[in-house]
Amino acid sequence: MAQKYVVIGGSAAGPKVASKIRRLDEQAEIIMIQKGKYLSMASCGYPYFVGGVFDDPGALIATPTGVARDPQFFSKVKNITALIETEAMSIDRTGKKLLVKNIPTGKEEEISYDKLVIATGASPVVPPIPGIDLDGIHTLQSMEDAVTLKDLVVSKKAKKAVIVGGGLIGIETCEAFQLAGIDTTVIEMQDQILPFLDWEMAKLVENHMCSKGVSVITGKGVTKFLGENGKLKGVEISSGEVISCDNAVISIGVKPNSSLALNAGLKVGDSKGIQVNRFMQTSDPFIYAAGDCTEVTNLITHNKQHFPMGDAANLQGRVVAQNVVRGNSEEYNGVIGTGICKVFDFTAGSTGLSQKIAEREGFQNIITAVHAAPDKPGFMGASPLIIKLIAAKSTGRFLGMQAVGTGDVSKRVAMAAMALHGRLCISEMVNLDLPYAPPFSPAIDNFIAAVHLLENKWQHQMNGISPVELKAKIDSGKAPFILDLRGPDEFEQMELGIGEVLIPLGALRSNLSKLPQNKDAEIVTYCKISLRGYEASCILRAHGYTNVSVLEGGIAAWPYPRKK
Amino acid sequence: MAQKYVVIGGSAAGPKVASKIRRLDEQAEIIMIQKGKYLSMASCGYPYFVGGVFDDPGALIATPTGVARDPQFFSKVKNITALIETEAMSIDRTGKKLLVKNIPTGKEEEISYDKLVIATGASPVVPPIPGIDLDGIHTLQSMEDAVTLKDLVVSKKAKKAVIVGGGLIGIETCEAFQLAGIDTTVIEMQDQILPFLDWEMAKLVENHMCSKGVSVITGKGVTKFLGENGKLKGVEISSGEVISCDNAVISIGVKPNSSLALNAGLKVGDSKGIQVNRFMQTSDPFIYAAGDCTEVTNLITHNKQHFPMGDAANLQGRVVAQNVVRGNSEEYNGVIGTGICKVFDFTAGSTGLSQKIAEREGFQNIITAVHAAPDKPGFMGASPLIIKLIAAKSTGRFLGMQAVGTGDVSKRVAMAAMALHGRLCISEMVNLDLPYAPPFSPAIDNFIAAVHLLENKWQHQMNGISPVELKAKIDSGKAPFILDLRGPDEFEQMELGIGEVLIPLGALRSNLSKLPQNKDAEIVTYCKISLRGYEASCILRAHGYTNVSVLEGGIAAWPYPRKK
Repeated sequence: MAQKYVVIGGSAAGPKVASKIRRLDEQAEIIMIQKGKYLSMASCGYPYFVGGVFDDPGALIATPTGVARDPQFFSKVKNITALIETEAMSIDRTGKKLLVKNIPTGKEEEISYDKLVIATGASPVVPPIPGIDLDGIHTLQSMEDAVTLKDLVVSKKAKKAVIVGGGLIGIETCEAFQLAGIDTTVIEMQDQILPFLDWEMAKLVENHMCSKGVSVITGKGVTKFLGENGKLKGVEISSGEVISCDNAVISIGVKPNSSLALNAGLKVGDSKGIQVNRFMQTSDPFIYAAGDCTEVTNLITHNKQHFPMGDAANLQGRVVAQNVVRGNSEEYNGVIGTGICKVFDFTAGSTGLSQKIAEREGFQNIITAVHAAPDKPGFMGASPLIIKLIAAKSTGRFLGMQAVGTGDVSKRVAMAAMALHGRLCISEMVNLDLPYAPPFSPAIDNFIAAVHLLENKWQHQMNGISPVELKAKIDSGKAPFILDLRGPDEFEQMELGIGEVLIPLGALRSNLSKLPQNKDAEIVTYCKISLRGYEASCILRAHGYTNVSVLEGGIAAWPYPRKK
Repeated sequence: MAQKYVVIGGSAAGPKVASKIRRLDEQAEIIMIQKGKYLSMASCGYPYFVGGVFDDPGALIATPTGVARDPQFFSKVKNITALIETEAMSIDRTGKKLLVKNIPTGKEEEISYDKLVIATGASPVVPPIPGIDLDGIHTLQSMEDAVTLKDLVVSKKAKKAVIVGGGLIGIETCEAFQLAGIDTTVIEMQDQILPFLDWEMAKLVENHMCSKGVSVITGKGVTKFLGENGKLKGVEISSGEVISCDNAVISIGVKPNSSLALNAGLKVGDSKGIQVNRFMQTSDPFIYAAGDCTEVTNLITHNKQHFPMGDAANLQGRVVAQNVVRGNSEEYNGVIGTGICKVFDFTAGSTGLSQKIAEREGFQNIITAVHAAPDKPGFMGASPLIIKLIAAKSTGRFLGMQAVGTGDVSKRVAMAAMALHGRLCISEMVNLDLPYAPPFSPAIDNFIAAVHLLENKWQHQMNGISPVELKAKIDSGKAPFILDLRGPDEFEQMELGIGEVLIPLGALRSNLSKLPQNKDAEIVTYCKISLRGYEASCILRAHGYTNVSVLEGGIAAWPYPRKK
């Protein structure tokens, strides 16, 4: 007898589950329940629609050949019944029935199932701040939200906007607004934007945003939305300062839509995501779950986490379909934690653990390296790329990577993600055989060069010092002797202004007398990217200096203001 | 006592060895011997210099900050003695002395060493074809070659050129010439260009080249260079045809410069590359070798091979420096065989084994998949990308990947290379956690989608047929029933014209009567990229058809002429 599959959710995971079930079982009855009007929305594309990369909202729900993925499409092409504007109200697990309500008519009906799939997604967290209901406060979660924000941009009604929250969606929305000529301020309660990055990497992105005219306020939360006649006029932040604005977008995160599952007695984790086993099966063997409503295993920490990402949702959907049709045969083991974000001319991405997270998760003995370099030979029109690597000191096991810059970040993060999936350690990554040609990378790819740096530190061929550590020393009045190894012309153009002494690398050996004569003196070396800084540290160590560190990433990775 | 290191070779591996030795040993005496005038040339950049991506030859030998890497630079900055225009004549291994000759003066001298490093590179193979000495026949191996070819381009003296050999350098040179307005013909003796690709992938690149006005002749060799007054006028090929031209570039490969090592009694392999152990040490423990003069281990086949690549040379150089200074501590295990090439708007890359090579190397039971898709969501301005994967059928072990197209090939080849380094199998690659955002990839990255296709075939959810197989069936009069699943408007725009029947996917279930009624009939389905073709094959199989195959890659990967 034909199996009957009911899928709750029609955005990312749901349609993937339903479509893949159809490919595996032509005879099955498949019903997909969607609360909203639209199906298969490319919701990650909303900021690009708002920002004018394209103007037809239909593109967000169209197949590559331009056919709208509406109920007729699902019926005709995939023989799937898609019920839109229909809410799943409750699950009768004993009777294997789902109660649904048609939203426009209010009519309820029961739908029986052999297997049920929950793919209810996540919803934006909207904080209970005074004034939150004022006109002009938005989220960017639905097609309707996207159309509303697009209209603000196109009509030029918005002049000054605040983005509350500096995560992925906040930053993407900020870019869209600012490029559309809206004067935009990002307010982030934490001390940095883009929480998947370490502070000093996030600061480089923030600096780039500021260079594009965006205002970024970190370490302060919104305490009140201020209005006039019900219309937003500004926000008050925790310092008491008021920032005037006519529109605001709340993007402080999303929470899993797991109440339906919870009310049905299914297990929900501490993350509030629905618990699933490695087959994406819930605590009821006839019910599976996929996408933003679930929690998944982090393959590095082995902890459960909520990981609301469109790519993971799609992959989980495929696994669920295989398992509901063929019995549990396909595993979804978890995620390593990979994300990426375009920020004006920058890209910021990460995979695995940041230093901050690694330390918080109890990886005590870690080693890091920050590497800055052009992402191609100079003659090919290279762009800067800054990479941070994190590894376990005792084993050399690779734990995580971050990259920011105008160079090809996406490729290097993808490579690092593959390395984490392959559980590689440092010594397995020093001699990678990668696709090299001048249009694509330097002869030693930036990722490998970063691994070399990490290995050099690991093998005590160099000591590194982070800009944060150096700044703290300077600020506390314990500044080391700081040595800039660039040429005078370079120094003329760009200068940190932190009390450094300029000795071009080529003149170092003959100018050792200009250094502190106490061989225990702390010396920090750098140049534009700290390659010459590294060579200088080798020379100084060979001349008996015992406390020489290289400023990692050099000027290119310096997150603080420069003298010029 | 200070160690004395002598490095023979000043191009890629040599300077890397010398510079890294210096960083590890400030006291060492380091002498670098270079036959030519220039040092540290970015020789992979020659085609881009010739083609006008940049015009200053100095950029090829400059540091990122624009300083020429000449003997003064090496002396001043790195305290390395670089002897240019100096040839290494012979090695006295017993006396640990190298005999060198200054080329301009003819003066010979002996240089003693504690450790010797051979990094003599490779030379172009120049075939002994009649007329080979005519004026107008070039190679592209040296700075001087690059300047000569650049002059041909800039002066517009060359009007019609022939490139002999369709490998990496040949194709890059062809692009440079054609873009400069030179009417260019590539002649390749094998039945395809770019031998690291399988035929049908190489043919897609060839088609793209032809669309740019290049002529490509495969399966025919040059038998004679024809001249007049000592000047090249044309080439005769094995079919007897004559192609007129005023200039020709020979790029049929390179051979390792291993005679110095051979004459010194060092072991040289079947590839003619110098044999080294995993520490890059030759059969003499005081002599190491690195770069294009060596042979390396292929980590997949475990065979030795000559692998003349700039990135490998640099990595080997680093390993050699570590081992000569600190004793054998760092291993260079080998290569997986990765390469990439820009070809006009296309990129073509590969890593690991091609199907052809895998079969030749005795991997009998392999499975392949060809996947075509846009490399981003359509609304972000996607470009097509065609990926071929090769895996072992019995174990699912991943063996190789090729990618071509105008999309981001470089990222996907790099990912595949990482997968090979991590020794992943299919089941470990179906749920990769990669950096997804709309500016960078589809929600399911093309590489993962290709793995899904491979898994679908592996698990017998679909059968694939390659365009080569389908064409052979058609040509032999045994054409299957061919079904195009696209819409009528798409068919109107683009049509294979191989006897196909058009039934849009959405109409398939209600038009089964139009199919052969014999359920054993061979049916081939396709669409633009064969996703709808795949869905159709699922429907047909569910309706009892037992011999349904999907044309892999669809129209996007069809290498033969189309009706329109």
